[in-house]
Amino acid sequence: MTLVTLFTDFGAGFYVAQMKGVILSLAPDAVIVDATHEISPGDVLEAAYVVENVVPAFPEESIHVVVVDPGVGTSRKSIVARFARRILVAPDNGVLTAFLPHADEVRELTNEALYLPEVSATFHGRDVFAPVAAQLALGVELEVVGPEFAGPPVSLPELYAAGDEGRVLFVDHFGNLVTNFSAELLSARPSAVVTGPGHRIATRARTFGEAPAGTPFLYAGSGGRLEIALCGGSAAEQLAWTRGTRLELAEGAE
Amino acid sequence: MTLVTLFTDFGAGFYVAQMKGVILSLAPDAVIVDATHEISPGDVLEAAYVVENVVPAFPEESIHVVVVDPGVGTSRKSIVARFARRILVAPDNGVLTAFLPHADEVRELTNEALYLPEVSATFHGRDVFAPVAAQLALGVELEVVGPEFAGPPVSLPELYAAGDEGRVLFVDHFGNLVTNFSAELLSARPSAVVTGPGHRIATRARTFGEAPAGTPFLYAGSGGRLEIALCGGSAAEQLAWTRGTRLELAEGAE
Amino acid sequence: MTLVTLFTDFGAGFYVAQMKGVILSLAPDAVIVDATHEISPGDVLEAAYVVENVVPAFPEESIHVVVVDPGVGTSRKSIVARFARRILVAPDNGVLTAFLPHADEVRELTNEALYLPEVSATFHGRDVFAPVAAQLALGVELEVVGPEFAGPPVSLPELYAAGDEGRVLFVDHFGNLVTNFSAELLSARPSAVVTGPGHRIATRARTFGEAPAGTPFLYAGSGGRLEIALCGGSAAEQLAWTRGTRLELAEGAE
Repeated sequence: MTLVTLFTDFGAGFYVAQMKGVILSLAPDAVIVDATHEISPGDVLEAAYVVENVVPAFPEESIHVVVVDPGVGTSRKSIVARFARRILVAPDNGVLTAFLPHADEVRELTNEALYLPEVSATFHGRDVFAPVAAQLALGVELEVVGPEFAGPPVSLPELYAAGDEGRVLFVDHFGNLVTNFSAELLSARPSAVVTGPGHRIATRARTFGEAPAGTPFLYAGSGGRLEIALCGGSAAEQLAWTRGTRLELAEGAE
Repeated sequence: MTLVTLFTDFGAGFYVAQMKGVILSLAPDAVIVDATHEISPGDVLEAAYVVENVVPAFPEESIHVVVVDPGVGTSRKSIVARFARRILVAPDNGVLTAFLPHADEVRELTNEALYLPEVSATFHGRDVFAPVAAQLALGVELEVVGPEFAGPPVSLPELYAAGDEGRVLFVDHFGNLVTNFSAELLSARPSAVVTGPGHRIATRARTFGEAPAGTPFLYAGSGGRLEIALCGGSAAEQLAWTRGTRLELAEGAE
Repeated sequence: MTLVTLFTDFGAGFYVAQMKGVILSLAPDAVIVDATHEISPGDVLEAAYVVENVVPAFPEESIHVVVVDPGVGTSRKSIVARFARRILVAPDNGVLTAFLPHADEVRELTNEALYLPEVSATFHGRDVFAPVAAQLALGVELEVVGPEFAGPPVSLPELYAAGDEGRVLFVDHFGNLVTNFSAELLSARPSAVVTGPGHRIATRARTFGEAPAGTPFLYAGSGGRLEIALCGGSAAEQLAWTRGTRLELAEGAE
């Protein structure tokens, strides 16, 4: 039994099921877990954030497949990497930004013998990534997928704030805003505030229960990032901030 | 192999996957089933209705984890209960209303040795409930989770109508309205009608095929509740009734 | 271990979980995969398209259950068929159009001994199809479900274009429009264009990377149909075409 997780931007259609069918046809004992299929279409930065958060929750020997792939059918390369005794399979477009610098092995996926016999031009998730993941689950060695990856893989530096300049990485189901600032800044800079279009957030709370109703507040998110929430409502809606909104961290004294 | 089901209000993001990763890291043979992740955010009454309907469909020895938890990080307690040879894990906020009065054993979840080493302030689903469920799946005895629950757990009486005063509990994907009246009233009171804001529903049908097109009708829902539907359309939309709408049961003779 | 896939129009509620509970209660070793639960409510044609695409991706011996069933509770019959060493279970309403003409065996589901003890009037997915699928997964022979199906099953001819007259079958999560024309027409008729309300699509591309930005284009979809997409946007939105829109294939020379 090997765990295989799937990260896609496919939404609730049937493309995910086709990938699962391919994987289970080749590796019947694989246990497939949906990591998420609700990445915003083509948003590699959001995907990188979700990958960073989900992979460490899974055990060693698990395989993680990321199919957020706006460049499918172009010359973008594909990657298979070993990181912390887990295997990652993805296009080379930055979705593995959090892990590739620390990977033990990074290979370019080129061995067409591992693909489905017919590869469509538009659905490499089903025709390339799924059968490769299945064969890795069956124990195929990493070196079989292709040569060592030459040259640096694509990286998305905006996954982390640059000094005091940051942005919203992700808006969750509750309207909480995940920023690319580290949650550690809350303890390191006890008087810091976050500013963005039309608003300045200075209130802090440890939990939703502690927060004053109706006031957006800063807190240490469960994923290690500084987040902004609103007790009993949607911070995203009240602030009118969204994925990509630019933020600034500043000292709060005026 | 133990079945573990998950009930959350997390929607389609990646928080559910983090819970699954934690469970499978500790209990690799657990089989995890999504009960639902689309409870309206923080709506403990809707959660109580869904829990009531889903748990009995699962076999004995299954474990059911409910993470609809608007009070996370406050002093609300957590519960582990044994009911009908199944195990239920949830915050003490009423989501187990249907089962706790009939439970064989109710314990307060206090044994921090069962939690993840680091517990975040905002995500007990991942850091507390998931590892506890995994360890119960591995066979940890119920008495290990904590002492017997002292004092009555939180109950939501509005899960059941009080006499002729009721409400809409749940609106399903088809726009059918589930009320908190028992479906048995249909046979007990053959001339009863349901009234609510701006409308009076007197038509009855056994199936959608029997119902007159365009007319909202009363029927015995598959979950044992009196429901209101519209053949070929959404009763919720046509009546402009929604979750929480107050209803009244009355005799239909005028 | 037997694979059971579920195709429904139930959306994200808890009805699917009830079906899974019933299946796993009877067949604990079944591995259940969600094919899709987002068929447009009651849309048997869309369901037929999705079934056509997903079933072949799964291995032999898999069981596929389709519960898109606007006629539940009427006199519509139910079918169990064997096709390409897979088993299909569905209402007789056309959702199996792609496979029934080529099936090795088609039976009418009539054996009530296989159903749940109490069958509701409105939820045959849980009370009929789920327990039947579970028992087929346990190895019950096909002939046990009922007699050979008499008379032709319901078929949906509009699953395939009639000559040059076609329609939109499906709009995917990215706004790509799947038509009922075969993708082979692209090679067979190199100068053909697709016309529909207010628009004429003549541009062709092999992949999204090759397509000119902002111009809707024709391509061979991964499911063998002629599809229409827009690089970096939603073709459905830009063209204002949707499921059911009538299309015409014409020679492009003017």
